[in-house]
Amino acid sequence: MQGNHQQQAYDRGITIFSPDGRLYQVEYAREAVERGSPTVGVRTADGIVLAADRQIRSPLIERDSIEKIHSVDNHIGIASAGHVADARQLVDHARQRAQVEQLRYGEEIGVETLTKEVTDHIQQYTQVGGARPFGVALLIGGIENGEPRLFEADPSGTPYEWQAVAVGGGNTRIREYLEEEYDPQLGQEAGIKLALEALATERDELTPEGVHVSSVTIDDPAFSTVDTEEIEAYVEELGLGGEDDE
Amino acid sequence: MQGNHQQQAYDRGITIFSPDGRLYQVEYAREAVERGSPTVGVRTADGIVLAADRQIRSPLIERDSIEKIHSVDNHIGIASAGHVADARQLVDHARQRAQVEQLRYGEEIGVETLTKEVTDHIQQYTQVGGARPFGVALLIGGIENGEPRLFEADPSGTPYEWQAVAVGGGNTRIREYLEEEYDPQLGQEAGIKLALEALATERDELTPEGVHVSSVTIDDPAFSTVDTEEIEAYVEELGLGGEDDE
Amino acid sequence: MQGNHQQQAYDRGITIFSPDGRLYQVEYAREAVERGSPTVGVRTADGIVLAADRQIRSPLIERDSIEKIHSVDNHIGIASAGHVADARQLVDHARQRAQVEQLRYGEEIGVETLTKEVTDHIQQYTQVGGARPFGVALLIGGIENGEPRLFEADPSGTPYEWQAVAVGGGNTRIREYLEEEYDPQLGQEAGIKLALEALATERDELTPEGVHVSSVTIDDPAFSTVDTEEIEAYVEELGLGGEDDE
Amino acid sequence: MQGNHQQQAYDRGITIFSPDGRLYQVEYAREAVERGSPTVGVRTADGIVLAADRQIRSPLIERDSIEKIHSVDNHIGIASAGHVADARQLVDHARQRAQVEQLRYGEEIGVETLTKEVTDHIQQYTQVGGARPFGVALLIGGIENGEPRLFEADPSGTPYEWQAVAVGGGNTRIREYLEEEYDPQLGQEAGIKLALEALATERDELTPEGVHVSSVTIDDPAFSTVDTEEIEAYVEELGLGGEDDE
Amino acid sequence: MQGNHQQQAYDRGITIFSPDGRLYQVEYAREAVERGSPTVGVRTADGIVLAADRQIRSPLIERDSIEKIHSVDNHIGIASAGHVADARQLVDHARQRAQVEQLRYGEEIGVETLTKEVTDHIQQYTQVGGARPFGVALLIGGIENGEPRLFEADPSGTPYEWQAVAVGGGNTRIREYLEEEYDPQLGQEAGIKLALEALATERDELTPEGVHVSSVTIDDPAFSTVDTEEIEAYVEELGLGGEDDE
Amino acid sequence: MQGNHQQQAYDRGITIFSPDGRLYQVEYAREAVERGSPTVGVRTADGIVLAADRQIRSPLIERDSIEKIHSVDNHIGIASAGHVADARQLVDHARQRAQVEQLRYGEEIGVETLTKEVTDHIQQYTQVGGARPFGVALLIGGIENGEPRLFEADPSGTPYEWQAVAVGGGNTRIREYLEEEYDPQLGQEAGIKLALEALATERDELTPEGVHVSSVTIDDPAFSTVDTEEIEAYVEELGLGGEDDE
Amino acid sequence: MQGNHQQQAYDRGITIFSPDGRLYQVEYAREAVERGSPTVGVRTADGIVLAADRQIRSPLIERDSIEKIHSVDNHIGIASAGHVADARQLVDHARQRAQVEQLRYGEEIGVETLTKEVTDHIQQYTQVGGARPFGVALLIGGIENGEPRLFEADPSGTPYEWQAVAVGGGNTRIREYLEEEYDPQLGQEAGIKLALEALATERDELTPEGVHVSSVTIDDPAFSTVDTEEIEAYVEELGLGGEDDE
Repeated sequence: MQGNHQQQAYDRGITIFSPDGRLYQVEYAREAVERGSPTVGVRTADGIVLAADRQIRSPLIERDSIEKIHSVDNHIGIASAGHVADARQLVDHARQRAQVEQLRYGEEIGVETLTKEVTDHIQQYTQVGGARPFGVALLIGGIENGEPRLFEADPSGTPYEWQAVAVGGGNTRIREYLEEEYDPQLGQEAGIKLALEALATERDELTPEGVHVSSVTIDDPAFSTVDTEEIEAYVEELGLGGEDDE
Repeated sequence: MQGNHQQQAYDRGITIFSPDGRLYQVEYAREAVERGSPTVGVRTADGIVLAADRQIRSPLIERDSIEKIHSVDNHIGIASAGHVADARQLVDHARQRAQVEQLRYGEEIGVETLTKEVTDHIQQYTQVGGARPFGVALLIGGIENGEPRLFEADPSGTPYEWQAVAVGGGNTRIREYLEEEYDPQLGQEAGIKLALEALATERDELTPEGVHVSSVTIDDPAFSTVDTEEIEAYVEELGLGGEDDE
Repeated sequence: MQGNHQQQAYDRGITIFSPDGRLYQVEYAREAVERGSPTVGVRTADGIVLAADRQIRSPLIERDSIEKIHSVDNHIGIASAGHVADARQLVDHARQRAQVEQLRYGEEIGVETLTKEVTDHIQQYTQVGGARPFGVALLIGGIENGEPRLFEADPSGTPYEWQAVAVGGGNTRIREYLEEEYDPQLGQEAGIKLALEALATERDELTPEGVHVSSVTIDDPAFSTVDTEEIEAYVEELGLGGEDDE
Repeated sequence: MQGNHQQQAYDRGITIFSPDGRLYQVEYAREAVERGSPTVGVRTADGIVLAADRQIRSPLIERDSIEKIHSVDNHIGIASAGHVADARQLVDHARQRAQVEQLRYGEEIGVETLTKEVTDHIQQYTQVGGARPFGVALLIGGIENGEPRLFEADPSGTPYEWQAVAVGGGNTRIREYLEEEYDPQLGQEAGIKLALEALATERDELTPEGVHVSSVTIDDPAFSTVDTEEIEAYVEELGLGGEDDE
Repeated sequence: MQGNHQQQAYDRGITIFSPDGRLYQVEYAREAVERGSPTVGVRTADGIVLAADRQIRSPLIERDSIEKIHSVDNHIGIASAGHVADARQLVDHARQRAQVEQLRYGEEIGVETLTKEVTDHIQQYTQVGGARPFGVALLIGGIENGEPRLFEADPSGTPYEWQAVAVGGGNTRIREYLEEEYDPQLGQEAGIKLALEALATERDELTPEGVHVSSVTIDDPAFSTVDTEEIEAYVEELGLGGEDDE
Repeated sequence: MQGNHQQQAYDRGITIFSPDGRLYQVEYAREAVERGSPTVGVRTADGIVLAADRQIRSPLIERDSIEKIHSVDNHIGIASAGHVADARQLVDHARQRAQVEQLRYGEEIGVETLTKEVTDHIQQYTQVGGARPFGVALLIGGIENGEPRLFEADPSGTPYEWQAVAVGGGNTRIREYLEEEYDPQLGQEAGIKLALEALATERDELTPEGVHVSSVTIDDPAFSTVDTEEIEAYVEELGLGGEDDE
Repeated sequence: MQGNHQQQAYDRGITIFSPDGRLYQVEYAREAVERGSPTVGVRTADGIVLAADRQIRSPLIERDSIEKIHSVDNHIGIASAGHVADARQLVDHARQRAQVEQLRYGEEIGVETLTKEVTDHIQQYTQVGGARPFGVALLIGGIENGEPRLFEADPSGTPYEWQAVAVGGGNTRIREYLEEEYDPQLGQEAGIKLALEALATERDELTPEGVHVSSVTIDDPAFSTVDTEEIEAYVEELGLGGEDDE
């Protein structure tokens, strides 16, 4: 209980350190990410796969309105886990940066540059008072100079580049699965299957409608959603689905 | 009681996370919505139906002044549950966005675009200090590119698209009713009846004056109130009314 | 006592919700209204009657300086219950809105439009930090397009339209009286008498000087005070007065 | 003690209501007024009398520097009870308003208009955060359209018009005295005597130097201080003085 | 101890009243003045004397750098007791006001006008949040229209005019001494002696270097420091010095 | 426990001192630095070596994305320990200052000048409210006027110049190692080896990929990363590696 | 413990007084100064000597980077004790003021004028909210009109002029030493020796590198550092050094 009181003393003010040098508000924002359903990113030899679990509370909800994956520019997409409304703010910020880059230099923004624009924005909300940190983690993927790049932006505003990664609920188990199964030589199709299998580790069954998968490849650098029919075929092939679809 | 104290520590400051990653102020704003009378939205094959319970405290009050449904643009309406005064602010915001769109592009704003303008606005009140979140949930419905669209905007600023949905007091039971009875092939008239029956699940009797129903259809894309006489006929047909009307 | 402590935790910060979704500061502002003397509004077939109790602490005070009823525009009046100084701020705001409308469109502002300008202003003080809510309820009455209209603006910023209503101290009993006695066919004179009788339910006796009554009619759309002599005649006729006038 | 704790919870924040709808900070500001020495205002048939107790802590202090009565414009004066420094701010505000009126309309500002300019200013300090209320009550008196007018402005920002009134320490007893003795037919000289007798109710003896009396009349609408010699004669006549003057 | 807790509840926030109408922060600022060494002002028939105790912590400190008396304009000086750094701010403010007056009207500012400019400035720090009150009391003296004037400005921002006065540590005893010994007919030399004797009441011995005395007279309206030699002669004449000077 | 409570009282507000004159928030920011992996800087006779530990949480993470060393200008680099996102903000600030210098004076900014621009920026976050201090320590190294310079910028905003230094986790042991082994005559290659050995004191084995080493020399004043192959050779030569590389 | 709690109640808010009129934050800032190593200033017949202890934590630190003495203008220097980063801010402020003076009037700023510019700046941080006081004491010395002047600026913003003074850790004992040994007739060389001996009172041995001594004389009014060789000779002559230098 002493420990509890100690902790309480430092985690209420957004912009202050605890005696052991931690920023509790940022750590709690990470908890907010854990409360969200998982999102997976895979970098293949050919491109990037972003896959998000989009289970729904009710059969009457339109699955497509569960916004977990957004396109930023033609060639870059962002998948999120955690607060959907927070993610939208960051995606809007990313889109504006991409447009400014396009207008100023006549070039598409690089994936790494975009990621750092976003993480610098996130960091401000962890240091300056008057607002809480963003309760969301992003996976930012796309093609840059003919190479697929996949980044994570966490609530502290730190950028990381990954070969394959998961954020959100159950990410520990999914990351373990990815570490075991990932192979940098995977093609795009294999990458999509890996992403589906990874998401399936946290669920009893996977319905084609219950996931949103997007893809961008070096050959076709246009970030786009993978058709439900295609997902359905993979799910069947991998034996991830349950008996009765809705 | 320990738990109580723990909780108290995190729910006073508007813009901070609790250790388990929740934003209590947003959850309490949802409670404010639950305290309001229920509002129902139904997407039919032909259009959108918005129906709101407008019971009154006194026979001397003018029912029409109980503002639960507002038209935004010619083709879009917003129904609310929760704080009426908060809803008015959001409706004003929506109207301004619709006008700006009209002025800039000479086009009517889309239902989805409008919803996201509103939810982004709501999100700001959950992250930036100096104000509380909005204590209201909105149903935003209209015709977009010849298709009926129905969205929910909740106090966290998350947008959801629905086939049929209820917000406000008793929404759990009403949603269950909708899940059982909803059929996407329903015509507009059947949609109105479904909405009335849904609202009736929470009341002993339904008077024609006690509800406000609005409708917009693909064929007549002008958002307008359904006449009380028409409602009266439905209530009678469905046997939802009580013996003595006021 | 637990409950007490619970409550204390949420009612100090102006702009936050309690766990059950209430805004205590707004509810306490309603208590401030209850502490004021009552004000009554009646919509008759011919016009609007606003009547306010203006009892005085001392025989040396000038009754006319007890400001309970204000004219906004030629055709609209506002009666208040609660903090007099707060009411003045809102009346000033209303007058400015009315002038702006006149200047911009060359037309008198409508009663409903004016009411909503005022309630939107009130709402801001319940959501944005740095100020307390207004501790006053207003009755806004006037003629709009040849029709009498009567609105209430409460401390939450919600507008209601009424046939007859009371705000301030003892309003529950007065509203009950109005519900029993109100008839929409009442003429203006009968409306004045109803208002006086309604106020009298809360007092042992009613002196002509102890009330302020204003009136506006469709035929004479100029908001003006009813003469004390006229009130005196009604009080006598209705037997509401005590033996000895001051 | 419970009650004490309850109360403490609501009276620290300047701009919030207590559960019973009170603004403690405004009530405490009234206590600050009570701590000051009393000030009396009397409206006679001929004009206005303002009289203030100005007892001094030391014989070395210059009595004239105890500022209790200020002229605003040629024809209006303000007497205060409570915080002298706060009163100066309000008097400065009043003077500026009077000058603005003069410049804009070429007319002397009315007593009622001036009072309401001042009370609206006071109200702002009771609603908007970042400052405390004014700890002072004012009596504002002068000639308007050939009529003497006498107003009180209290710390809540409410204006009252009086025939005769007292503010500050012992005002309850002085008001009782005024209620018994006041007669609207009193001439200016009788008004001065009444004011002196009223102040004397709270003191064993009244020295001519121990009061400041100002006067303005319909015939001589220039607000000015009554000579000490004149006061001395009244004090002697009324038998209010003690044996030994300083 | 109850009382203690009660008090603590109201004295932390700078801009709020306690239940008995006091502003603790202002009272504590007065304590800060009491902690300073004393300063005396005397108005003579010929001019003004300001005298300040300037004892030093170390023989290596330059006494002249202990700033207790400042000239504002050619004809006005300010002596302070309490926080030296706070006094400097107010003196700077006073100098600016004096210059502005000179520039605008081509005239030297009056002593009373200057005092009120300063006290109005002090008052702001007792009402508006975001800063503490000034922890200093000032004596402002000079010649105005051929007359010597002496004012006190206290931490509440109240101006007082005095014949003779002391502020700072031990002022109660010094004021008693002044009340006994002061005579308005005193010439300037006698005034200086009175000031020195007054300061000596609080010390075992008075060294000429241990005081700073300034003087301004009607005949020589230039505010200036009295030479140490002259002080030495007075100290010797009055027998105020100790045996051994440093 | 008393001590604990004492401490708690002073370490929550960012900008205040504790009774013993410490700024806890700055000390906690230092703890945040200690939580990071270590970074070493060595000044050799020929240039500057910056070496950072970059261990990774997962084999799927791209080591190059662990940003511990940044180039600012062509000739200056910054290595960090602690919060990566905070470091990015300071590096951005440094880059802007370097560009401004270049634009204004047409010269490369000096290492010392740049360091002080950065530390002055850091200091502001320890004194002015509304933000927390930076949770990062920087090593800033480069060539200035043909001389290698190596500076540390700590969370208090104090600049230090070093011959060799370590910041971050385990810096005490690493500094001890450096003090024993450092020789100002070391050439650049020896400097790199010393840095590797220093980092190795805190780890069982050192993999070439697990460190990031950068170098700038007088002869080749372009700040650049040392190739992994080169590091591999050194690690092997020094026997710092483990048996199995990933 | 009661006393402890009492104290705690008043020392957290930067800008408020305690009941006994103290500003704890300023007193704690003085503690921060005491935690720093000592700095000595001596005014000789010929000029000013500033001497600072600059012991180092590690033999690898560059002593010259321990900034304790700064030149402001050609003829003025500032030595500090306490927070180094805070001192830099004040030195920057002083330099700007000196430049402004030079630009406006074409003259070098006076030592006293500069000191007061700095202390007025310091005072603001003790009165206005939103920032903590400066945790540093400065000694400001230089030549003004052919005379050496030496000032102290403490955390309250009070300026003092000294013949000889010490600030920082152990200043009490050093001041005692100075009081015993100081002679205003000392020449510059003797002044340097006195400063070294004064610093030595707090240390077992004094190494030439362990102190920074600066000097400015009437004859050579350029503020500059005394060579280590020269210091070495003095240390040897005075027998202050230990056996083994590094």
